[in-house]
Amino acid sequence: MTENHIIEMFLHPKSVAVIGASKNPLKGGYRIVTNLISNNFKGRVYLVNPNTEGELYKLKFHKSVLDIKEEVEIAIFYVPNHTIPELLKECIQKGIKGAIIEASGFEEVGEKGMVLKDRILDITQNFSRIRIVGPNCMGLSTIEGDSDTENKSGFFSGFGVFSKYKRGNIAIISQSGMLNGGYLMHEITQHPEMGLRYSCSIGNKMDIGEIEFMEYLIEDPTVNVIALYLESFKNPRKFIYLCNLVRKLPNKTIILVKGGLTPLGQKATLSHTGSLAEDANLIKAIIKQSGIIQANSFYEMFQYAQTFSMFYNSKKKLPKEGKAAFIAGSGGAGTITADLTMKYGLKFPEFSNETYKILIDVFPEWMPPNRFAFVDIWPAMEKAMMNKIKPDVIMKKVYEAVLNDPEIEGLFNMMFCSRQFKAMNDFEDIAKSVQATDKPIFFWLIGEAKEVKKTSNLLAKYNIPNFPSLEDMVKNFRVLFQESMNKQRK
Amino acid sequence: MTENHIIEMFLHPKSVAVIGASKNPLKGGYRIVTNLISNNFKGRVYLVNPNTEGELYKLKFHKSVLDIKEEVEIAIFYVPNHTIPELLKECIQKGIKGAIIEASGFEEVGEKGMVLKDRILDITQNFSRIRIVGPNCMGLSTIEGDSDTENKSGFFSGFGVFSKYKRGNIAIISQSGMLNGGYLMHEITQHPEMGLRYSCSIGNKMDIGEIEFMEYLIEDPTVNVIALYLESFKNPRKFIYLCNLVRKLPNKTIILVKGGLTPLGQKATLSHTGSLAEDANLIKAIIKQSGIIQANSFYEMFQYAQTFSMFYNSKKKLPKEGKAAFIAGSGGAGTITADLTMKYGLKFPEFSNETYKILIDVFPEWMPPNRFAFVDIWPAMEKAMMNKIKPDVIMKKVYEAVLNDPEIEGLFNMMFCSRQFKAMNDFEDIAKSVQATDKPIFFWLIGEAKEVKKTSNLLAKYNIPNFPSLEDMVKNFRVLFQESMNKQRK
Repeated sequence: MTENHIIEMFLHPKSVAVIGASKNPLKGGYRIVTNLISNNFKGRVYLVNPNTEGELYKLKFHKSVLDIKEEVEIAIFYVPNHTIPELLKECIQKGIKGAIIEASGFEEVGEKGMVLKDRILDITQNFSRIRIVGPNCMGLSTIEGDSDTENKSGFFSGFGVFSKYKRGNIAIISQSGMLNGGYLMHEITQHPEMGLRYSCSIGNKMDIGEIEFMEYLIEDPTVNVIALYLESFKNPRKFIYLCNLVRKLPNKTIILVKGGLTPLGQKATLSHTGSLAEDANLIKAIIKQSGIIQANSFYEMFQYAQTFSMFYNSKKKLPKEGKAAFIAGSGGAGTITADLTMKYGLKFPEFSNETYKILIDVFPEWMPPNRFAFVDIWPAMEKAMMNKIKPDVIMKKVYEAVLNDPEIEGLFNMMFCSRQFKAMNDFEDIAKSVQATDKPIFFWLIGEAKEVKKTSNLLAKYNIPNFPSLEDMVKNFRVLFQESMNKQRK
Repeated sequence: MTENHIIEMFLHPKSVAVIGASKNPLKGGYRIVTNLISNNFKGRVYLVNPNTEGELYKLKFHKSVLDIKEEVEIAIFYVPNHTIPELLKECIQKGIKGAIIEASGFEEVGEKGMVLKDRILDITQNFSRIRIVGPNCMGLSTIEGDSDTENKSGFFSGFGVFSKYKRGNIAIISQSGMLNGGYLMHEITQHPEMGLRYSCSIGNKMDIGEIEFMEYLIEDPTVNVIALYLESFKNPRKFIYLCNLVRKLPNKTIILVKGGLTPLGQKATLSHTGSLAEDANLIKAIIKQSGIIQANSFYEMFQYAQTFSMFYNSKKKLPKEGKAAFIAGSGGAGTITADLTMKYGLKFPEFSNETYKILIDVFPEWMPPNRFAFVDIWPAMEKAMMNKIKPDVIMKKVYEAVLNDPEIEGLFNMMFCSRQFKAMNDFEDIAKSVQATDKPIFFWLIGEAKEVKKTSNLLAKYNIPNFPSLEDMVKNFRVLFQESMNKQRK
């Protein structure tokens, strides 16, 4: 169903012309071409620059799109804003159907930019002759095959060159270019295990905006998580409608960061994407009616996206009542997590009698387990060591009991990662033994930085998320609970 | 003044006996000795274990403290709880003045533990014959010299062996042992630039508690930041009094994480440190009257501690009105930060006329700068490149103008760290040029993980903090603003 959608040609183009291609490695027009070629883009690529002769990456420069003999589906514009109207005319004449325009200097700069916009409206006959993504954007990215495999392939049309990435089920739609540039690079190098499918920088959305991309991504079966950064809603009614469609799908989640929630933020959006101030109450109402997950920052947005990504990959169940247990080797961590759990509207319930019996058995008499779902595991470890039982055996027993408890919908864990205490933590074993459950499992990893990194990578292989802070861990369970309520809402 | 305080012998002991010392590398009694020896503890060390013959690290085992010929100042107990009363008797007989007791199984386990406690009260004559830190704690740490220098030295009495650390101006007092164990290791390996002076695990605080340590640390000129994790207030009146003393000092800040703020958290504290539930309103009142910085989690506590540590190291001024500017290469980051700035009660003010004039000069005509204190630097960079001016030159000009603006009390920065755009970011140059100002400067670093790490280390050399999220950056400026109000309060 996605093949006939207007977005198909933008995310999976058969051929692209790079207008403003350059041989100068310092220029964006060089980087865009590099991004296409070095990432094995499967479509045809044509270089266009009236001032450049010769070749780049064995591709010939053309003076104009009109000099290209073959058919061209879309054009990527990396040229100054004032040259765009005339170049668009040539694209239309050539039969090019779509343009990605990266230049800024339109609505966001006031009157002069509006004049330019009017000319574009006129030339394109209100976008009926050619469709536009942007302007003031940083291009679109589609990841086809992981960068560290033979199948390495992607369509990267921004001017930040990507070299390491993993294909996955997350798609981004953003009015901030850096989410297809510097910040995306940040996230995927900090979290190399994070799998992405698309990143769409939509800029000022003069023509195409979040709605068209959402329509496409909702239909695309490779996408489970749609993360949006919006400074304005182009069509609130349609936005709510699409979000409510997603609410009824068992395998999709929408996460939104809304910029411009405060008067100061709105001042910033005006100069950024030319987004006019929206009424704060209207924004609240839109978000409420949409039934989506709201994030406060890019950091939260990516963390939530990764949590849902792993959740869908591992086919877990959403917690219907927000009831979690915590297994930890620190009473202090248990206390803080208990406080945070209440603060975020979640619960540590009482264990069932069956679970409690098993716990009593593995805990020493002088330090019985809690009746409520916080297991301070340390005394049980000590008892095991005194009885010459491997701590792993006890850990597995506790995990199994807690995960089988019908009162428990998900599990928090604290793990201490250290070469000093290696014997106590056979993570691979634990990860394997808990992956069969359909209850979400979250880890808080502490210890020596290197060991933490190693364990984090290992857990990711089993689609088990981990978090740098207890608050992040609790907040991420909260969004699963929230999504459960979203999906249940009529 | 600190020399005569009871805590002096606990943090700078001249001689210690390790009761429960062991030759078995898997035991805590082995690790404690290793921690002392491998970290060049300057005092004398005596090993005590009735069941062990021979030597460890060329130190002889003694059957009892009574067999030690020389004077012993304090004893570290790593033995089962029920053996403690008799061993304490011997310590008193030997003239040992203080004991650090790491075993658990006292107030926190109910009746049996209370019986044990009563025996200890009896034997010590209400701690008049020997003073006790703990029980249920993970020891005390004093860092004397950085681990990577010839002066490497410290007193580490916990059973997690420390090997990498940096001496600095932060002291921790904690009712969670992991803040002198696993989590401390986590923080100092994740942030090797963080400088610590002491970490004091006070456990159940049967005798000595937060009050005594606070008294000592307030007088200690090597400490600027006191970070506390408490599950109960031992003496609320005295706590408020000491906090109010600190409020009047220009070079000290207290940060508190309070565990057990909610009924669920209080259930956890009871089984952890035997802390009884405190009335939520009373806790609120204590914190309010104390005029300290409250943190929600260990993560926040360490981040705030590091921020204040660098703040005092670099002799900055607290922002009196919470007015910051933001220089960034992303309008989206500007928008989100503007929203967060308002949310946390801070301001991006209007620039003064002088600053605005300088900005107008470096910005292109088609994209003028904002009048309010968010500088979206990208267009100025583009203009510089078109005019063949090095971007660095423009950056410095903008920094200088903004930092000289009397309306601005602090600066947020976004920096993109990437080998691709190396030419644009000579951080060392920027870091040097901004370090002279007395206005706090915070960075948000994004980009390739390795480059981010490198830049983070570089900034730390100049005592410039950086944060992984925009929200963390804004929150940390907010606590400086809050501390300014604390210090101004009568």
